Amino acid sequence: MIILGIDPGLAIMGYGVIRVEGPRLTCLQYGAVTTQPRQTLPNRLCALYTGIDQLFEIYHPDEVAFEELFFSKNVTTGIAVGSARGVALVAAARRTQELYEYTPMQVKQAVTGQGGADKRQVQQMVKLLLNLEEIPRPDDAADALAIAITHAHSRMMKHLYKIQ
Amino acid sequence: MIILGIDPGLAIMGYGVIRVEGPRLTCLQYGAVTTQPRQTLPNRLCALYTGIDQLFEIYHPDEVAFEELFFSKNVTTGIAVGSARGVALVAAARRTQELYEYTPMQVKQAVTGQGGADKRQVQQMVKLLLNLEEIPRPDDAADALAIAITHAHSRMMKHLYKIQ
Repeated sequence: MIILGIDPGLAIMGYGVIRVEGPRLTCLQYGAVTTQPRQTLPNRLCALYTGIDQLFEIYHPDEVAFEELFFSKNVTTGIAVGSARGVALVAAARRTQELYEYTPMQVKQAVTGQGGADKRQVQQMVKLLLNLEEIPRPDDAADALAIAITHAHSRMMKHLYKIQ
Repeated sequence: MIILGIDPGLAIMGYGVIRVEGPRLTCLQYGAVTTQPRQTLPNRLCALYTGIDQLFEIYHPDEVAFEELFFSKNVTTGIAVGSARGVALVAAARRTQELYEYTPMQVKQAVTGQGGADKRQVQQMVKLLLNLEEIPRPDDAADALAIAITHAHSRMMKHLYKIQ
């Protein structure tokens, strides 16, 4: 079972790919698709689409987990982030129906055991849980791995409840 | 020269396809891709993507004109509309680099000669300019045709200036 975690954004879209075998998690890849403000919006969106599509080509993820959009107070930012998120969703949805979404608090809770954990604690736990040598960079990639881990835990919990 | 006009929206995405030969405009097709709130967001976005992609399959538009997003006061609406618009942009941008954008005021000005024209006046002019038997329905399709006409006029103007 391969899980792709995505932290959507227009300038930086973090991703993390993990393999789940029973309780064991392995990090296969992480990184970020980045775009520049000097590019046109369509070109930026195309780069995001292609980046996600390539992850499907290479890793064939079975399920995809997204960070639920943080509601910005700024409508213009909301539209830009919404565009990027729409593109990420459609790129994934054209490949699989198995899409899931988690709030930042659910991610913190699943990864550290505390819904109020700070960024650094989440990153340390990502490093520990995936047995990485260092904290993944950029932050958006660490976040994407945390989202993938959250989904792996959520699946495991559902499975436990199901067999009881 | 074939122009595709798009009026982006999550529930209703209007489209209009016109052919431009010199000063002559012909309507080839118009309509709307519609999605339902009971569908998941990824499924709605997929339907929009596929709808636009099929227009490229059938009509091979050379250039695509979008209505520039009206900034909603509501951030949540902005994100939903932003998602739909991102998907429309990426579906078109994966087919052509020739993407253009016009504000509602530019559209009114180009189609009726008045930036302050009302919806009904725009629709009447669309019917007249494209020699249609009736006003296109839904409104979003009429808007998309108006956007395509605006782009046709804009191209014509640029051409006139160029040859002077």
